[in-house]
Amino acid sequence: MKRILLLLIIVAALMPLVNAQQGMFAPSVQSPLIGKDGSVIFKVKAPDADTVRLIIDSRLDTLMQRQNDGNWSLTLRDLKPDLYMYHYSIDGVKVLDDNNAQVCHDVKNVMNKFILDPYGDCPMAVHDVPHGDVSAVWYDSPSLGMKRRMMVYTPAGYEESRQRYPVLYLLHGTGGDETVWTEQGRTAQILDNLIASGKAEPMIVVMPNGNVDEPAAAGSGPDNNVQPTFAHKNWMDGTFEQSFNDIKTWVDSHYRTRDAKRYRAIAGLSMGGYHSLYISANQPDDFGYVGLFSPAIGRMDKGKSKIYDDIETKLVNQFKQRPKLYWMGIGKDDFLYKDNAEFRKMLDQHRLRYTYYESTRGHEWTNWRDYLVIFTQLLFK
Amino acid sequence: MKRILLLLIIVAALMPLVNAQQGMFAPSVQSPLIGKDGSVIFKVKAPDADTVRLIIDSRLDTLMQRQNDGNWSLTLRDLKPDLYMYHYSIDGVKVLDDNNAQVCHDVKNVMNKFILDPYGDCPMAVHDVPHGDVSAVWYDSPSLGMKRRMMVYTPAGYEESRQRYPVLYLLHGTGGDETVWTEQGRTAQILDNLIASGKAEPMIVVMPNGNVDEPAAAGSGPDNNVQPTFAHKNWMDGTFEQSFNDIKTWVDSHYRTRDAKRYRAIAGLSMGGYHSLYISANQPDDFGYVGLFSPAIGRMDKGKSKIYDDIETKLVNQFKQRPKLYWMGIGKDDFLYKDNAEFRKMLDQHRLRYTYYESTRGHEWTNWRDYLVIFTQLLFK
Repeated sequence: MKRILLLLIIVAALMPLVNAQQGMFAPSVQSPLIGKDGSVIFKVKAPDADTVRLIIDSRLDTLMQRQNDGNWSLTLRDLKPDLYMYHYSIDGVKVLDDNNAQVCHDVKNVMNKFILDPYGDCPMAVHDVPHGDVSAVWYDSPSLGMKRRMMVYTPAGYEESRQRYPVLYLLHGTGGDETVWTEQGRTAQILDNLIASGKAEPMIVVMPNGNVDEPAAAGSGPDNNVQPTFAHKNWMDGTFEQSFNDIKTWVDSHYRTRDAKRYRAIAGLSMGGYHSLYISANQPDDFGYVGLFSPAIGRMDKGKSKIYDDIETKLVNQFKQRPKLYWMGIGKDDFLYKDNAEFRKMLDQHRLRYTYYESTRGHEWTNWRDYLVIFTQLLFK
Repeated sequence: MKRILLLLIIVAALMPLVNAQQGMFAPSVQSPLIGKDGSVIFKVKAPDADTVRLIIDSRLDTLMQRQNDGNWSLTLRDLKPDLYMYHYSIDGVKVLDDNNAQVCHDVKNVMNKFILDPYGDCPMAVHDVPHGDVSAVWYDSPSLGMKRRMMVYTPAGYEESRQRYPVLYLLHGTGGDETVWTEQGRTAQILDNLIASGKAEPMIVVMPNGNVDEPAAAGSGPDNNVQPTFAHKNWMDGTFEQSFNDIKTWVDSHYRTRDAKRYRAIAGLSMGGYHSLYISANQPDDFGYVGLFSPAIGRMDKGKSKIYDDIETKLVNQFKQRPKLYWMGIGKDDFLYKDNAEFRKMLDQHRLRYTYYESTRGHEWTNWRDYLVIFTQLLFK
């Protein structure tokens, strides 16, 4: 009682000082309200609005229903367990959920997020299992002439043990940065859960920044107010691929890695899949496992760098040395589907053996998280 | 040219897939636009709005001017170099800046952020200096019976060196979590800059979670969709203080620390100042440096835990053992000013020597960042 009273005194005292913080003192509506049955109820106050829409990443854009109390509401059922990103549109103006402080951004678009885990088995959710650590580290890149930032996941027990671990290098797409695989990608939660259940081997996951124009994500580099963007100067021109060994060398000298091809994997989404394709083809002795998630393959490469020349010859040579796994995943609706089909056809003509996974939907995070869940269970076994 | 063309093709192809991402494809207005003279121009599109306000954390709440092109604009000058958090209010609805993907939250209130550094010397800005690493680690807390998450800053060169480092334990306020000192608090940037310029000693900074009800910040713990809040069950009742040695023991066994009183500091803001006061008073042999930033001192403690009993006797005993620095800072407008004045009066009556810093303004981050800049320059010398 005394504690509650004191709390009220402090909150009351704080109010004039935090006039910006309506969200904090607004009558606390719970939104989204997630039921045990997996239903999700969204509620937003907008008494004067004519139309309020709910937009869930690229999955849903629908009208909400006006309630008598000035709120607009919508109930969704049978959503797949996953991470969801959403926002409201009130008379055409983008508005975040004032009752949800959990946000995430995709390139420049800031959205609220929630986790749907009705059965307690969603690999993207945090569960009560041993957790690995995630570090934002700065490594030296002599080829790019700068210190660069990357995220490194070390599995639970790494600090206490003396053993060496295999490494997955996990690359992002254009518009992304070193943080996206731990944010939208849920890498730490996915690995924590798969390792705890014995479905994946304990591994180090290295998530560098594939945009060579910036040393770090927006807000973490010397250009303090730079914004995330699709437009890069040195973009898919071989620069990142040529500088990749700076990362590998630094990781092998700073972490207890198993420095051998069969203990090293590289994978990436979109531009990161393109990077993974060319880095592994140019360094056939380095990667026992390759994962191409909706890779940005599209004849964009010829002549731009020796990294991209004679790719068929390089691939034939790479497969001669028998990678343990060459995995490709793409969604039926992906705008890169046709280019990927042609790439697979070329691999087939050369009788190069790969694993192919085709999902529904398009070029989006719900697919890339699923691909990571599938791919990481196949590594280092 | 070819690259630009390709970029347009990809962006065009992506558009139908990312209908949620207006922000990404909207004509790219730069807002806030920060001039070399330190002026800041805000611009937001709202052609149908009657009133648009700009709200900058607790510092400013003002009307913007309607332009002919459907935008509303405002120019600010002579702002102090610092981190700023802001949002818009369009006809009373809270709206974030669609041209700024950089956001931050304070308790439940999500805001955009920008850094103002017109002279290139703002200690809160990222500068081109060696950067330390920041790790989200999980430590074992036997007293609380759970694994808990905290952030640890290790200074540039830590990985490469074999030397041992002093440690600052840095605690947050109620409503905060283990992430606030690296987010709003800018601890990594402040330490990077002060260490690079020789103004602060290289040190490890440990930022635990002071809310014993949750193992981690909202979104990082098993209660995936929990929201940040002021209301805690075990709140300032001695539980955190009694479990503090779990953190110290873990840090000393996992990092190259200098395990001696004169190389150990503890500081915190608001509730974290209260925690720092009682932890250091109960463990007089452990901390050579104590920092109380707007500490939540307010007779809220008596009888709730033996941690809080006989505090005057404990303080007299603590000061007998000559801490190298006992530092207190508070703003003139802080709602805790009077309670802090009475605490200082009590210290004076016992002739206990402390350093006192009085700032303008109230119970807010702009003060706590300044206090961190001042306090860390006095440590371990």
